[in-house]
Amino acid sequence: MEPYAFAALVTPEGEGTRAVQLYRAILSAIRLGRAAGALPSSRAAAEALGLSRNTVNAAYELLRAEGAIAVAPGAAPRILPPPPLPPSPAPGPTPPLSARGHQLAAEGRPWPAPTLFAPGRPDEALFPRDLWALALRRAARQPQGAAFAYGEFSGLPSLRAALARRLAADRGMRVSPEQVLVTPGAKASLTLLAVALAGPGDAALIEEPGYNGARSAFGGAGLGLSPLPVDGVGADPDRADWGCSPRLIYVTPANQYPLGARLTLARRAALLARAAECGALVIEDDYDSEFHWEGRALPALQGSAPDQVAALGTASKALMPALRLGWIVAPPALAGALAAVQRALGLGANIHAQGALADLIESGQYRAQLHRISRTYGERGRAFAAALRRLPIPSVADPTGGVQLTIRLPEGVEARAVAALNAAGFGPVPLSAFCIGEAQEGLVAGFAQATPERIARFCEVLTWAL
Amino acid sequence: MEPYAFAALVTPEGEGTRAVQLYRAILSAIRLGRAAGALPSSRAAAEALGLSRNTVNAAYELLRAEGAIAVAPGAAPRILPPPPLPPSPAPGPTPPLSARGHQLAAEGRPWPAPTLFAPGRPDEALFPRDLWALALRRAARQPQGAAFAYGEFSGLPSLRAALARRLAADRGMRVSPEQVLVTPGAKASLTLLAVALAGPGDAALIEEPGYNGARSAFGGAGLGLSPLPVDGVGADPDRADWGCSPRLIYVTPANQYPLGARLTLARRAALLARAAECGALVIEDDYDSEFHWEGRALPALQGSAPDQVAALGTASKALMPALRLGWIVAPPALAGALAAVQRALGLGANIHAQGALADLIESGQYRAQLHRISRTYGERGRAFAAALRRLPIPSVADPTGGVQLTIRLPEGVEARAVAALNAAGFGPVPLSAFCIGEAQEGLVAGFAQATPERIARFCEVLTWAL
Repeated sequence: MEPYAFAALVTPEGEGTRAVQLYRAILSAIRLGRAAGALPSSRAAAEALGLSRNTVNAAYELLRAEGAIAVAPGAAPRILPPPPLPPSPAPGPTPPLSARGHQLAAEGRPWPAPTLFAPGRPDEALFPRDLWALALRRAARQPQGAAFAYGEFSGLPSLRAALARRLAADRGMRVSPEQVLVTPGAKASLTLLAVALAGPGDAALIEEPGYNGARSAFGGAGLGLSPLPVDGVGADPDRADWGCSPRLIYVTPANQYPLGARLTLARRAALLARAAECGALVIEDDYDSEFHWEGRALPALQGSAPDQVAALGTASKALMPALRLGWIVAPPALAGALAAVQRALGLGANIHAQGALADLIESGQYRAQLHRISRTYGERGRAFAAALRRLPIPSVADPTGGVQLTIRLPEGVEARAVAALNAAGFGPVPLSAFCIGEAQEGLVAGFAQATPERIARFCEVLTWAL
Repeated sequence: MEPYAFAALVTPEGEGTRAVQLYRAILSAIRLGRAAGALPSSRAAAEALGLSRNTVNAAYELLRAEGAIAVAPGAAPRILPPPPLPPSPAPGPTPPLSARGHQLAAEGRPWPAPTLFAPGRPDEALFPRDLWALALRRAARQPQGAAFAYGEFSGLPSLRAALARRLAADRGMRVSPEQVLVTPGAKASLTLLAVALAGPGDAALIEEPGYNGARSAFGGAGLGLSPLPVDGVGADPDRADWGCSPRLIYVTPANQYPLGARLTLARRAALLARAAECGALVIEDDYDSEFHWEGRALPALQGSAPDQVAALGTASKALMPALRLGWIVAPPALAGALAAVQRALGLGANIHAQGALADLIESGQYRAQLHRISRTYGERGRAFAAALRRLPIPSVADPTGGVQLTIRLPEGVEARAVAALNAAGFGPVPLSAFCIGEAQEGLVAGFAQATPERIARFCEVLTWAL
């Protein structure tokens, strides 16, 4: 094999060091059957290629490590034959999904619609990209010690402490750092709680209409679902069927998803009393209470009953969903066991994203970010609601938080409205998709990217569909 | 409330902008009951504090957004009373774990031992910190588009493509980017496969001795476990009980964990034939085949039977476990459904870690890193094995890959040896902890941080314990 055959492949434009480029070129020649026998000595190759002998030796060492050549002192590197392939057995069929696999696959298919005005979706333009890039870099350059491998699986101590302080001060939670478990997001948090606290066939109550992510996570854990009806002031415990003796109760007291109600004090008390009676854990999804812009957010339910409530939070809305960063504030008596279950299931979050978030919280930049997005989303949400109020549909109230609102529709209009809006490039989700019982008609539409032009166009298409 | 009372709190040393500092100082005064009634006008406050009026207005806006003050045109900002706390119901008890929650919590408790010489643990000193920090920063500064929110839940297209190319070229897999699902690590991959492909009460075969993470992930999904015995050449399909008709079969063909055998070609063929007979999915955990340093790694089992095999990989060993980055190469017919289940359960990985890994793979730096650590771990592993061969115990072969080896012990010695080594600061895990059937005695010890001094001390303590 003559070295000049590779010369053209080793150029400064190629990827990697010159040694890596040379290694790749030779390996590819060997694999394609264009090289056999022996390679030239490293001295001859270096000369022919105009490379240093160190570079050629480094490439040969990579080839040796790969098992592609054998190197013996004083002899030319010998190209080894490819390893024998295992005999092919008769090819077996692909195994099928299980029943719950089928159900979950149906739940998890992405909504086949445009993402503009899709609910729950923040605006990428408001993500503080440079700030985050710097914080990430700082986090990555620190030695991690115990957190490097499988220690601190429930989160970096600095983040757990920062979150505990913030949630106590801003959300009125009763929380120590040991109660905070950092996860790869809200759905993973729900999966963890469902698996740890309930078994197949157990029941869970979820708001109706309610977050479909809770439905799929609970379904994955084998739970049966029962509706907890929601009206204009949130979940109504008196209208649920408590005969199912639920192990879990999923609620969004700060800003009901997707209707936008704030759970009243009386209902909060009733819910906690009912939960205590049947020994259920209340899961309080506090998903967007951090940027509540109208009036004052009520303190979290967790603060009233830390033993009965697990509160969920996420960096998805304030920063970016794809960070895959969420947290659970667990009841003190369950925190240790839940951390062990978290480790057993492998539900840990990336260390550098955790470090960057801790950094932003401690430096006050996270709060500044919340302030910035609250103002923007508030303006957009109010403008969207005002425009919708001019249409011949049930009146839409100003949203008080979050990044989506619900538009109630007259009977029989939902499917047509969704189709027309999808076709025009808008991705609201039908309200009926948030129901497990009798379908309610409407649209759940995000407004994080609602510019005046887009709002006008949305209303135009919706009017046409009506 | 006099503005000068806050002057001392707004200093350049504090965290955050001056507006945020002022906001915090006032909020804390309100919460502590040291302020009531009204705040001074922003003009008066700015003058008294020596701050610009914009700064004071920004602080007041934050207080307004928090609901701490009400602002009306032409009037001083009015401090609002705190929101009423919900009436405390009789505090309920903490709900208990479910049966599977208890089992998983027991599986997931961290091993109570030092981490030095603990199995499966790479050396933090070999993590390319600056390189990773730069790659992360680059990834974070890019606009993400569809991947920003809930799209691309199974991984960044660039990473899925880079992994597919690499695994095809280096591991002989038959894989397209659509088959690659990026997850938060190997355990999360196992949880996903178990939930999607099996139901409660179904059976799974796992190597005996074998990876305890597979045991806990399968247990969490409600599966029953049956042993697949391992000897010096890997898992022996003829010695397993196939009467249980397993849905899943967990194996580590490239480098058996924890014994270190390489599965023979004959056994590979037999395993695939048996799996096809009962319609089981073979899970090939290729956890450390990437830095196989002795001879040539056999191509992955997946390449022989892509419809029957799901191959798992991870960046834990080559880079850092706390990145929480792993992947599944799924059978083509299952990839779409598994991606949907992944989304339903919330098992997604951090976007910037994904971007950085894609970057390192494409630039050749990942391969250079593998080369670097293979050499170091190879040296350390061989030195450790050579030292152990001088002790009066069954001979320890040179490891051919990975970061741990297994030391067989005479009967009745294991507990004493573990206790003595733990007391001396070493964290090997007893081999019996890797067994679900009859316990085998020995030590599974990591050598990623095995310096000559540590090896000498380890052998000294072990000799004493014998």
